[in-house]
Amino acid sequence: MYRIAVDCMGGDHAPEAIINGAIASLDSTPDTKLFLFGPAATLENLLSQKTYDKSRVEVIDAPEVISLHEAPVLAIRRKKDSSIVKALHFIKDKQADAFISAGSSGAVLAGGQLIVGRIPGIPRPPFGALIPTAKGVSLLLDSGANVDAKPEWLLQYAKMGSIYMKEVVGLENPSVGLVNVGAEEEKGNALVKETMPLMKELKDINFIGSCEARDIAGGACDVIVCDAFVGNCILKMYEGVGHMLLSQIKSAIKSSPVSLIGGALIKGSLKETMKKFDAKQYGGAPILGLNGLVVKVHGNTDGREVTHAIRQCADFIRADAVRKIAASIAAETTPEA
Amino acid sequence: MYRIAVDCMGGDHAPEAIINGAIASLDSTPDTKLFLFGPAATLENLLSQKTYDKSRVEVIDAPEVISLHEAPVLAIRRKKDSSIVKALHFIKDKQADAFISAGSSGAVLAGGQLIVGRIPGIPRPPFGALIPTAKGVSLLLDSGANVDAKPEWLLQYAKMGSIYMKEVVGLENPSVGLVNVGAEEEKGNALVKETMPLMKELKDINFIGSCEARDIAGGACDVIVCDAFVGNCILKMYEGVGHMLLSQIKSAIKSSPVSLIGGALIKGSLKETMKKFDAKQYGGAPILGLNGLVVKVHGNTDGREVTHAIRQCADFIRADAVRKIAASIAAETTPEA
Repeated sequence: MYRIAVDCMGGDHAPEAIINGAIASLDSTPDTKLFLFGPAATLENLLSQKTYDKSRVEVIDAPEVISLHEAPVLAIRRKKDSSIVKALHFIKDKQADAFISAGSSGAVLAGGQLIVGRIPGIPRPPFGALIPTAKGVSLLLDSGANVDAKPEWLLQYAKMGSIYMKEVVGLENPSVGLVNVGAEEEKGNALVKETMPLMKELKDINFIGSCEARDIAGGACDVIVCDAFVGNCILKMYEGVGHMLLSQIKSAIKSSPVSLIGGALIKGSLKETMKKFDAKQYGGAPILGLNGLVVKVHGNTDGREVTHAIRQCADFIRADAVRKIAASIAAETTPEA
Repeated sequence: MYRIAVDCMGGDHAPEAIINGAIASLDSTPDTKLFLFGPAATLENLLSQKTYDKSRVEVIDAPEVISLHEAPVLAIRRKKDSSIVKALHFIKDKQADAFISAGSSGAVLAGGQLIVGRIPGIPRPPFGALIPTAKGVSLLLDSGANVDAKPEWLLQYAKMGSIYMKEVVGLENPSVGLVNVGAEEEKGNALVKETMPLMKELKDINFIGSCEARDIAGGACDVIVCDAFVGNCILKMYEGVGHMLLSQIKSAIKSSPVSLIGGALIKGSLKETMKKFDAKQYGGAPILGLNGLVVKVHGNTDGREVTHAIRQCADFIRADAVRKIAASIAAETTPEA
């Protein structure tokens, strides 16, 4: 049984959407046992209206809620009875192996480090973001955890990302690129120039060198490594440009009766094509390098991303990925930072 | 007369495309005198096939060409008779006030600094990039000149960008945003945290605080300030995501006979909408902070961007922008870095 803890109180549509997403996963992802964290009465009331295999779902009472506006570390320290803190202790105590939350990114990241703890030798667990590309999906990391990164952190991101894409996404020999401002050897800022030769020496990854931001959406490499400031800008440019262009196209279509008819005729094909760019199907952003898997789901999730995140967690646990990451890091002498 | 030097030997379609673009500007941008740099016989041969006001165009012989593959600083030092070096000396000697090239960015940037020279107090002239947004156009700087920036450089980018958007693009009180990974005060990397309070104190700009990458394409602010590594990633994500999405939509439309008909029906409206996202109409990337305006045009230009760049240069010269930038920088005690 793959034991997965779910924070039912995070996100814009909690707890209904989260519970719906969790229950929906029971059929599509077998062999899981789900632990739902939140105020017991509320959750049980919602669950009582549903038909599902009760042996695979357990409610754990967590009456407090950490809001988006609270300072993350303070909230983690003070709200011992919150769904996030109680669930993370559950992971720490090995009562479950993975945790999913659509709540505060900061609280999930801080709590993951403070409560679940880091794998020895990994000073800064990164946020991974699974981003759809023209070719499939790539893992961008660090997409938001640690700004002002050091070269050693980026080396670890490359290794952990490779393990994730191989074991969870199922890619053979995933390629790794280091985000850079040009393909030439001499390009880059101080961080990239220092990291490049070190990353070339890593034997257990398929490093292909510089990855220009222009080539990311086309699927230039499977694991995209960068500092969190850059990674966050890349992720948000992707969202922002995509959103803006699609809304411009929509209003162009609405601008005349003829193009409205045209729009109706292309709708089917367009929907099919755009489906693969729906980040929701990839199931959230994993934080790698902790003693368990912690997955952050978009706050605006309608529950479907939770369903996919549960599948992702089951794959991660099945692959024994925490142990594989720990072994890969231990294989190198990595300075603690 | 606004005197503008044009490098006819840079870009994929030089010299024909460049000359076409330059000649096309004569009608739309009056009061200019153009100096065309390149091998005289070649340029004159091309010009002899055209009808134009000969009193406004002068060929200056520059037999050498700097290629994209040459090390910029070395090429600038060695190829004294290249179109780039001879034209930049022309600016330095005040025989013209602005220079346009579709050639090597590195050579144009290095040559601009080494030959034309920096305005006193400006240690690092940035590359500006005019990017189309849902609301109009924004200036992103630094889009590629100086990685590992210091706070003082970013402050200068904010001022120079404001002057540019006001004087050349014609915006009243242009808003300035500092690229950041969140809107909250405590967010940011070391550079942003150090720069933020200093930028708030600048009196001569309309600073609106953090600008998240997600909001750039929507037109969140008129002047977008960041380090060149981040700026280059933003610019290239914009290009890459736009290109990828549009090609996905095209292949979706081609995927069935019904959607092909639909595509034909929306084509007119779509073309109209997409026109405003054609970066070419904004006429290239200005390097700000030099003793003259230097504008880099895309290497793949078909000449139209040159036409627009010439208009941009004329506006810049008319506005006396070099003097205004120098005055604005001199008004503060800015440490040389």
